Amino acid sequence: MAETKIAILLFDKFAALDVVGPYEVLSRMPESKVYMAAVKPGFYKDPNGLQIGADYALQDIAHPDILLIPGGFGIDAILNDSTSQWTVSVCSGALLLAASGILKGGRATTHWNRKAQLAQYGVAIENARYVKKGKIITAAGVSAGIDMALYLLSLAVNENCAKAIQLGIEYDPKPPFDCGSPEKAPQALLDRLRK
Amino acid sequence: MAETKIAILLFDKFAALDVVGPYEVLSRMPESKVYMAAVKPGFYKDPNGLQIGADYALQDIAHPDILLIPGGFGIDAILNDSTSQWTVSVCSGALLLAASGILKGGRATTHWNRKAQLAQYGVAIENARYVKKGKIITAAGVSAGIDMALYLLSLAVNENCAKAIQLGIEYDPKPPFDCGSPEKAPQALLDRLRK
Repeated sequence: MAETKIAILLFDKFAALDVVGPYEVLSRMPESKVYMAAVKPGFYKDPNGLQIGADYALQDIAHPDILLIPGGFGIDAILNDSTSQWTVSVCSGALLLAASGILKGGRATTHWNRKAQLAQYGVAIENARYVKKGKIITAAGVSAGIDMALYLLSLAVNENCAKAIQLGIEYDPKPPFDCGSPEKAPQALLDRLRK
Repeated sequence: MAETKIAILLFDKFAALDVVGPYEVLSRMPESKVYMAAVKPGFYKDPNGLQIGADYALQDIAHPDILLIPGGFGIDAILNDSTSQWTVSVCSGALLLAASGILKGGRATTHWNRKAQLAQYGVAIENARYVKKGKIITAAGVSAGIDMALYLLSLAVNENCAKAIQLGIEYDPKPPFDCGSPEKAPQALLDRLRK
């Protein structure tokens, strides 16, 4: 089997955990290589200044098996996703997929605070941690990229591989509070974050 | 109130999610600044080649309020933690704290596969997602850094702040499988990962 080619897109003002949550899972996939990519290779910053390196130009990565689009506020590139096997987004990365037209008429998810915006592209919004539509998987906000990446591995490799990686990163989450979704959070908190 | 100074240590072969899980939480702390630091400023790589920038020399960051020590295989620096208010580790980062002597006689946690090693430093191991001992908090493997960072924020700022950030990163985890700890994983999987 040929090496699985995984491209992760970087751009200025990417969301760091959108990138590194799935990265930590996918980089442990056997027989694979992660290509950190951008329209132009270099170092890119998240909104608080964390620098991550993109070693490759996106256009130089022919036919990635998995293309991952993180969320963030700084998207200003046009994407052509038609040559990847899996195309997956995290958080507001789904907006870029929607803008490219490939989500139209389908189901998807995104960060809870971006759902109305995503719906405007003619996308049916699901309240799920991740949504699979053919070879496209969209994930909810930021940390959902970890759940999605494990699910993706179970499809792209097998369940045993996904489970081994989950155990390797000791992903047995126990958040100290139970307010990680709009359904669970107090109204006052929601109102404050929506502003 | 003065700005909260958060130092996150980088070194060659850090574990990426150990760094970025807590980073994503802590960088959203109000009135704070994260200093990505290393013994020598520059770009550091995780075992699969992801590059993250350390803009500061650790010794130039006087009295950090929070010092975070990620895990990874490449630790070769000596740490002096005595001047930070909070000292927190993720994954095998606890071994560095133990080696410095500050965990001796106390309770702590680390990655499940490092617990025997940590116990050899005279540390009582707890099977917890994170363990607080005075101003030191140790977290379990890799992804536990997210849980720990939210808990830390609830102490260093307040619960409302931690909850707002949890909602912001939509941290309502739903792993596709329930095998993220040794107690939950099949024996065959454990044996394979221990090798």
